[in-house]
Amino acid sequence: MTDTSKDISGKYRQITVIGAGLIGSSVARGIVRARATDKLVLVDANADVLAEARVLELADAYSSDAATAVTDADLIILAVPVGAMATVGALIGPQLKAGATVSDVGSVKASVLNGLQPHIPDGVHLIPGHPVAGTEQSGPAAGFASLFDDRWCILTPAENTEPVALEKLTAFWALLGSRVEIMTAEHHDLVLAITSHVPHLIAYNIVGTASDMEEVTRSEVIKYSAGGFRDFTRIAASDPTMWRDVFLNNKDAVLEMLGRFSEDLTALQRAIRWGDGDALFNLFDRTRNIRRRIIDAGQDDEAADFGRPHKD
Amino acid sequence: MTDTSKDISGKYRQITVIGAGLIGSSVARGIVRARATDKLVLVDANADVLAEARVLELADAYSSDAATAVTDADLIILAVPVGAMATVGALIGPQLKAGATVSDVGSVKASVLNGLQPHIPDGVHLIPGHPVAGTEQSGPAAGFASLFDDRWCILTPAENTEPVALEKLTAFWALLGSRVEIMTAEHHDLVLAITSHVPHLIAYNIVGTASDMEEVTRSEVIKYSAGGFRDFTRIAASDPTMWRDVFLNNKDAVLEMLGRFSEDLTALQRAIRWGDGDALFNLFDRTRNIRRRIIDAGQDDEAADFGRPHKD
Repeated sequence: MTDTSKDISGKYRQITVIGAGLIGSSVARGIVRARATDKLVLVDANADVLAEARVLELADAYSSDAATAVTDADLIILAVPVGAMATVGALIGPQLKAGATVSDVGSVKASVLNGLQPHIPDGVHLIPGHPVAGTEQSGPAAGFASLFDDRWCILTPAENTEPVALEKLTAFWALLGSRVEIMTAEHHDLVLAITSHVPHLIAYNIVGTASDMEEVTRSEVIKYSAGGFRDFTRIAASDPTMWRDVFLNNKDAVLEMLGRFSEDLTALQRAIRWGDGDALFNLFDRTRNIRRRIIDAGQDDEAADFGRPHKD
Repeated sequence: MTDTSKDISGKYRQITVIGAGLIGSSVARGIVRARATDKLVLVDANADVLAEARVLELADAYSSDAATAVTDADLIILAVPVGAMATVGALIGPQLKAGATVSDVGSVKASVLNGLQPHIPDGVHLIPGHPVAGTEQSGPAAGFASLFDDRWCILTPAENTEPVALEKLTAFWALLGSRVEIMTAEHHDLVLAITSHVPHLIAYNIVGTASDMEEVTRSEVIKYSAGGFRDFTRIAASDPTMWRDVFLNNKDAVLEMLGRFSEDLTALQRAIRWGDGDALFNLFDRTRNIRRRIIDAGQDDEAADFGRPHKD
């Protein structure tokens, strides 16, 4: 039995964050804000991104080489597209020191767990994670320390994970402002398919459909976007590589949820065709309550129109 | 030929707004802000709504009876659900004075034009309109004067509309802060089907689908909504009666656009099933540009995440 009575501070002597995009750079800023480490090393394979991170003074040290940047790290956080996780795992695996914890911020968890596991040596803790937070912007300049405040971070440890390592990572995310939930990677992938992946897919899809109109010009789509369409364009401006990888790596859950969505949409389509106003009203009426509950749970702002600026 | 050289001020001696909900009350406030009339009369058949409007001091006079409230009006704006337009038209038609202009703010235009036309006497101008603006909230307290600032208002005059009446109504909306575009009711309904109606329908639909999950609990849907889902809940909190009427009254265009949306979604579904990353990336990459153009056109805010409040 591991002794869980010792102080679980959530602080690590050295933390290496691999990937300096929106999420990686926000994690770096959150670490600095929380003073969660003595030494923060930021890694990016892209020289321009790394140079930008350096100008922004996001870390104590910078490296383009993940392998050498992890040798002394107590916590390593992978903030790269889900499809690149296994490749980075293979690079850093042989360099990890005993007792270190490897985690990530990917939006899919089973494929990350399976992709990283073979590369993680005995004595290193693998605890995949997913802070459910973000914006539609990309790159080191887009990040900010408060991104994770009051958002949920989901950890999906493998079955044999040492409780102390898990508690320490839980405390780390709490330091960054998050609330932490622990579940299996499979359940995570199902939950996020409906709360994140399918919403992104249909946002990308409606923007694509609208762009391809012949009877309605592109400029009309833009001009009258305040009718609702513009809301979808925010999500559909998210990083294309990241989202391609999400769909390729959470195929089964996304297809399952998409099937349900399409089934329900066909029923709505039928209600419109047959003029079934009651069916429409009943759905439109019960969906209101969900918004209320999201606001009450602190997961969105109460202000009308997302608090978009209005002059009075 | 009508003399269009005379001063087109956009001001009317008396304006009667029928319906004191989000849009009607915002029109009332906009009229007051712009000093667009000497006398503003606000009508609502619902006694509670009318009492609330009175407390908010939205107008110069209040009435629950549309027929008597329009007898001296130079401009009458109907701000009731689209399905109620013809009924209100029948009520007020016999009371309208010669030279008056009747307009509305409904989200569908052909059915409104057709529903009102039989009730409008000769010598009264019928110019349906649609300010493309709103929030997810409802009722007189939810309105505000700047709702129409920099948004587009579409006017869909019947063929024989007198140019001066149209110019005056155009000037009126400009006084309220809007930019004005003129098109046929049919084209309006097609454009709005893709920029507003179908987006609302798929937002309502995804929220419904998510509420009905068995494997994923309702509280998980709420907790992890910041992954994208919460964006859809805003639109899906819009007024159920208004939106039921929109779909019942713009059936053909909505079904046409919905067909395209579903076709495109099926192609995406297939790309996911077969692991076609290039197809996914190509769509996700080209949709980014639309967001940029909407921001450049002043139809949405540049700030990340709609400018939702973050602590730094």
